[in-house]
Amino acid sequence: MVYAYCSTSGLPRTEEKGLELEFVFHPRSIAVVGASAEPEKQGYRYLNLLQNFGFKGSIYAVNPKGGEILGIKAYPRDRDIPYLVDYVISTIPAAGLAQLLDDCIFKGVKVAQLYTARLSETGKRELISQEKELVQRARKAGIRIIGPNCMGLYYPREGLSFRTNFPKESGSVAFISQSAGHTAEIVYRSSLRGVRFSKVINYGNASDLNETDFIYYFLHDPETQIIAAYIEGVRGERRFLRVLSEADGVKPVLIFKGGRTEAGGRATASHTGSLAGSRPIWDTLCRQNRVVPAHSAEELVDLMVTFLFLAAPKGRSVGILGGGGGGSVATADECAEAKLEVPALPAAFVAELKRIAPDEWDILGNPVDLSVVAAGKGGYAPLQGIIRFLIRSPEFHLNILDMGAEWLLERPEGGQVIHQILDAVIENSKEVLKPIAVILRPGDAPEEWRWRIVGELQQRCLEAGLAIYPSVGQAARALSKFVDYHHL
Amino acid sequence: MVYAYCSTSGLPRTEEKGLELEFVFHPRSIAVVGASAEPEKQGYRYLNLLQNFGFKGSIYAVNPKGGEILGIKAYPRDRDIPYLVDYVISTIPAAGLAQLLDDCIFKGVKVAQLYTARLSETGKRELISQEKELVQRARKAGIRIIGPNCMGLYYPREGLSFRTNFPKESGSVAFISQSAGHTAEIVYRSSLRGVRFSKVINYGNASDLNETDFIYYFLHDPETQIIAAYIEGVRGERRFLRVLSEADGVKPVLIFKGGRTEAGGRATASHTGSLAGSRPIWDTLCRQNRVVPAHSAEELVDLMVTFLFLAAPKGRSVGILGGGGGGSVATADECAEAKLEVPALPAAFVAELKRIAPDEWDILGNPVDLSVVAAGKGGYAPLQGIIRFLIRSPEFHLNILDMGAEWLLERPEGGQVIHQILDAVIENSKEVLKPIAVILRPGDAPEEWRWRIVGELQQRCLEAGLAIYPSVGQAARALSKFVDYHHL
Repeated sequence: MVYAYCSTSGLPRTEEKGLELEFVFHPRSIAVVGASAEPEKQGYRYLNLLQNFGFKGSIYAVNPKGGEILGIKAYPRDRDIPYLVDYVISTIPAAGLAQLLDDCIFKGVKVAQLYTARLSETGKRELISQEKELVQRARKAGIRIIGPNCMGLYYPREGLSFRTNFPKESGSVAFISQSAGHTAEIVYRSSLRGVRFSKVINYGNASDLNETDFIYYFLHDPETQIIAAYIEGVRGERRFLRVLSEADGVKPVLIFKGGRTEAGGRATASHTGSLAGSRPIWDTLCRQNRVVPAHSAEELVDLMVTFLFLAAPKGRSVGILGGGGGGSVATADECAEAKLEVPALPAAFVAELKRIAPDEWDILGNPVDLSVVAAGKGGYAPLQGIIRFLIRSPEFHLNILDMGAEWLLERPEGGQVIHQILDAVIENSKEVLKPIAVILRPGDAPEEWRWRIVGELQQRCLEAGLAIYPSVGQAARALSKFVDYHHL
Repeated sequence: MVYAYCSTSGLPRTEEKGLELEFVFHPRSIAVVGASAEPEKQGYRYLNLLQNFGFKGSIYAVNPKGGEILGIKAYPRDRDIPYLVDYVISTIPAAGLAQLLDDCIFKGVKVAQLYTARLSETGKRELISQEKELVQRARKAGIRIIGPNCMGLYYPREGLSFRTNFPKESGSVAFISQSAGHTAEIVYRSSLRGVRFSKVINYGNASDLNETDFIYYFLHDPETQIIAAYIEGVRGERRFLRVLSEADGVKPVLIFKGGRTEAGGRATASHTGSLAGSRPIWDTLCRQNRVVPAHSAEELVDLMVTFLFLAAPKGRSVGILGGGGGGSVATADECAEAKLEVPALPAAFVAELKRIAPDEWDILGNPVDLSVVAAGKGGYAPLQGIIRFLIRSPEFHLNILDMGAEWLLERPEGGQVIHQILDAVIENSKEVLKPIAVILRPGDAPEEWRWRIVGELQQRCLEAGLAIYPSVGQAARALSKFVDYHHL
């Protein structure tokens, strides 16, 4: 990979140069300051993760006691490291930061990532000043800061991670988040549904590098196709708006906003010292810049799956395989309430139904009730043709295919039926460029066979590149936002 | 158990006598008409289920070929059974129903439950008439009909069930549903969260016994404390309204309405031949009669859990253990958006915090950020005291305790922390009459250890009688409806 180091001192604002931040993601060496031999300490975990995720650069440990941690020599201070240090990860208490910064300046460090917390988010005047002064001194010396109060980078291609259960493979979704917890949840949960990431940054208090810097970078980052964010507060609204408006039409921007209410705003203040801003202003801002809003961590995952796996839709009309009678009613209601259209079956489809399900054709509609088909003389056999038509009928711009019906998984044999349905879905979906949402309910039951079957089905969907959703309501709402995004 | 048989012919409408339908649930003998030796046929499954769930009365099989099925002698026709038959379950095609009714009249059958489908729900004039005539003849002969197009009764106390994975133990929630699929999902899913049922009826087309009959019965049924329903259409709106208004203040009525939209209404018509009615009328009806509306099968399960396990609330104020920083923001937002109040920590709580978490007390608020506590010198130790105060402070009328934070379950050891939190929750919740919602995310991950840990935690919650929810949003919305119900 080609990248360039840029000096940041005295440079124009980052948005003037798309990839100015490239150096942040490609350190030649990292020093963990506060490295520890105790496995439950963060200073141990960072070192361990750098080793486990295969960071190719040099790794140094800094601990006043010296010695060796995880086979890495520990230096008493950062300045004692007799080699080049590009990137510092600090896990030491806030009181030690001033001296650390001296060392960073001395060593020509480019980036300091501060797990260190208890600064501006405490709301205490002296700590707010301390954070501010630290950033000012760092910027003057050409050092960029991520955090404080953050976990930093997950960049699998470079072997950087802050969680053991994040995937080692790369992908094309970039994600920034002020919350480490949401990052842990969203990256892990979305990875189970096939999402892989270009770069993820948990940036905490955003004292220096902030949401706008990162979104602007991702907008120019060739590794990134989709930009997702969990944001508690915006620093510099004008610049933020300008960057969002530049992103419009270039890459989708999906934002989960924390602090939409007064109570939530109090929580953002003590979490990352962020001013949450008002809800109506935020909503307008999203609408004007075609930002796709997510209401919860779960919804942000649904949107990542949707934008990553689905072809662009050509309209709002949805052809549905309903799980059963009640399931068909529920899907129709959820789709209509999400402002999708649920038209009748097209004439060619009805003609085909007459042929393949001669006893059921006249009582089937859209949604197609799976249980009516199954109860017919042909059993599940007509489903192959039905799924073929549901997916291939141009009258349907979208498909929701419910394969999660509870009644199918009363016994392990039910799994075979779902596998058969999935065969037809995989076969037909390959040849059609159309958004198809597959519903698979979570395998969180006490029966081990059930958990295993759902796991197998999920695995097959992932291998086939299908978008899976845990409920019809979640799929309908995500598809609706996807269609809105495409101005349909 | 004491119950009486009543002749129903020429009787006043059921609502005049609360427990007139008691006989429906206590047949002395059941004949499965359409009994089959093929395990995948419904006529086999009914027999098998009666045996497996321990039905105490006599079981007869009816099959034109005679012989023996599952050790039960099969008679060619119902009228050939040389014993008393109280209850008939029909799995034969609609064409055979007229003759079956002759036999039922001949045998003095009290109830006919018709799995048989393809009648009025087909929308065909002749089949609508056939269903109507059948019911008229049956009523004249004193026979009540459940269905057609239904699975019938799940009444664990009497050994009646139509699904193998329904619990064998009884409980106090009654549930009626026009959809077999929703019944399968709602009973099974809610049973995993500790709900147990008095009686459940999947009543399909409601040609004779309908939602009002059953709700009225449950209103008087001493086995039932909570009435839940999935309804696609109402037959006899005035009577329905009268019964709902009688239920108001006596037993909570939770209703998931199918067919809230035009598309959903088309689906209810072909599913159970139901006229869905208009959404605004339905909403008004719920409000006026304090019916608690559920928007989805998932939400109906949340409401069952809420009304079954939680003490009556005294207000809208909620004390929250947030999963982490972002999780705390999300819970605060979800609660406020659900119109719950999220006040600051009371003074006595703050004083206690100062003692048990001397380095963190001044940056903790409501929600209490679990990760701030954990990162402190005392680790998870102060949590015992914090949970004690959260639960015991009278300023909080409700609690939401998030123990599902993703970051805790990065590694198996995280499970021990959640078990410790749960210890404190169980200990304190025993001594306080207050609604407490515990958040445990589903264990649907590919790691087996994770699935097992969540299963163990879930089991401990169930044994302690705690209400568990899969997400903070679902808990907040259910609690809000619970508080609304109590006029707060």
